[in-house]
Amino acid sequence: MRIVVALGGNALLRRGETLSIENQRTNVRRACDHLAPIAAEHELVISHGNGPQVGLLAMQAAAFAGAPPAPLDVLDAQTQGMIGYLIEQELGNRLPFEKPLATLLTMIEVDPTDPAFAHPTKPIGPFYAKEAAEQLSTEFGWSFAEIEGDFRRVVPSPRPRRIFELAQIRWMLDHGAVVICAGGGGIPTAYVENGQLEGVEAVIDKDFATGLLAHDLNADRFVMATDADAVYENWGTDVARPIARAHPDALFERRDEFPEGSMQPKVVAACEFTAASGMPSAIGALEDIDRLITGEAGTVVTVDVDGVVYGPQA
Amino acid sequence: MRIVVALGGNALLRRGETLSIENQRTNVRRACDHLAPIAAEHELVISHGNGPQVGLLAMQAAAFAGAPPAPLDVLDAQTQGMIGYLIEQELGNRLPFEKPLATLLTMIEVDPTDPAFAHPTKPIGPFYAKEAAEQLSTEFGWSFAEIEGDFRRVVPSPRPRRIFELAQIRWMLDHGAVVICAGGGGIPTAYVENGQLEGVEAVIDKDFATGLLAHDLNADRFVMATDADAVYENWGTDVARPIARAHPDALFERRDEFPEGSMQPKVVAACEFTAASGMPSAIGALEDIDRLITGEAGTVVTVDVDGVVYGPQA
Repeated sequence: MRIVVALGGNALLRRGETLSIENQRTNVRRACDHLAPIAAEHELVISHGNGPQVGLLAMQAAAFAGAPPAPLDVLDAQTQGMIGYLIEQELGNRLPFEKPLATLLTMIEVDPTDPAFAHPTKPIGPFYAKEAAEQLSTEFGWSFAEIEGDFRRVVPSPRPRRIFELAQIRWMLDHGAVVICAGGGGIPTAYVENGQLEGVEAVIDKDFATGLLAHDLNADRFVMATDADAVYENWGTDVARPIARAHPDALFERRDEFPEGSMQPKVVAACEFTAASGMPSAIGALEDIDRLITGEAGTVVTVDVDGVVYGPQA
Repeated sequence: MRIVVALGGNALLRRGETLSIENQRTNVRRACDHLAPIAAEHELVISHGNGPQVGLLAMQAAAFAGAPPAPLDVLDAQTQGMIGYLIEQELGNRLPFEKPLATLLTMIEVDPTDPAFAHPTKPIGPFYAKEAAEQLSTEFGWSFAEIEGDFRRVVPSPRPRRIFELAQIRWMLDHGAVVICAGGGGIPTAYVENGQLEGVEAVIDKDFATGLLAHDLNADRFVMATDADAVYENWGTDVARPIARAHPDALFERRDEFPEGSMQPKVVAACEFTAASGMPSAIGALEDIDRLITGEAGTVVTVDVDGVVYGPQA
């Protein structure tokens, strides 16, 4: 099977951890323990988020007076190198030497008239107290949003329209390589007046980017690995209950029930992939990845059920 | 022909320029104006240096108190993403849409017992006055060396031994892609006791790394694009004169005449490639790249001459 996996935040950094390479490497090692058996058995494409990392690079660049900070597209490219390196090295350490891996820089086209540019929603970087956020907002013109009582920088998150390196990714898969690509949702780019491709100040949602990737690669499975073991109805309340399986049409209709910027984009990406391809997608914990693929864990979106089926798997 | 080009410092940043993305993009555009016709006609592999960039990222990381700075291998990986992105985008803008490009993360094995680890020689980052260098040395434990009256941070620069993504680079070439790889000399890695590959705190010389790449790819030409229009005998004196052509054995014997850390590694890399492969290598200005390939400009190292031939080309 051709399997496309999006690694969410906790695969790289757990909430509350310092954003050190040491912590990220520890988490990447744990993720690769689960991914290596999949890579040995299937065609595997891995994407990853970059919210904390791209925000940190922006902070570091802003803290140094010797050179102007790089724009977000360039910082995105830096995180593709940084995180791709950690994954390629640690996954390689868990596979036979002969198994090839390839980390491919990935640019993705967005629509410069996407309404997302007027409404920054994607949180990046660390959490701040209100006063610190206000100071950064004044100093750098950054936008902030209140998230769970703290403040985080938010940037525009346009929809991905086209993956430029798609053929290159396919060629690598044809040669049996594990491909790491579309990191951080891909580098957002757009055509400007003279037909030139340019970077834009944005961070694409990695679940949307990976869903497009899974679709365009004719993937057999699209898996989003995250903090939660499944999608929950009434998440965070006494009557929360996990969704085991759902038809994409039924779940898509209920997308507004799920938190924006966390579970909602995953639900929408899963529904869109499965509705368009007829192939299952799954949302759940990285530890369960083998059973997410077989449909025995997490929330599986599939055209093989009607409506929504509750209850933990198995 | 299969041509491997190493882009030196001035392809990305001219001496004295602020290390901004804007300046780097301007220089990358200029470089790509010269590279695009080569890409249209030949198989092209592009590598690049990262000295100023990796040093800047280290400074930015050190300036921000919120997270510990990343080690050099991770910063190398970041510069592969950053610079690879600029080159891929700008070269793509100068080629037909159908021409594929691929920027591949590249890890290179070094010998952990390489004597270079005890003698840091590779300059990275900005130039400092003596007092500023001493302060940074005390604060971060960095080594500095005096270079042309100013001080620059120096880090170990071990010899590259093996390029891990070689097959992946070949596959991309087989599909007609321009490949951007081995950026910053490749990410230096070494096997540790338990057989695991790990990053090491170093920056590999990009000319040595690119020479190894050209050799292993069976390149027909190995070109190092730099500030100077040729290798000069008695450089910086009244009796300086350019070397037009040289046999690799004759030039290698005279390698100690050329400045360490700038022309010497280029001379050594050229001689080693040509001696081992029998194919020509060339050192000269990016503006002359078409004539460097045909042997009509710069310094051409070739087995087709005896000794050293002086005089500007044609």
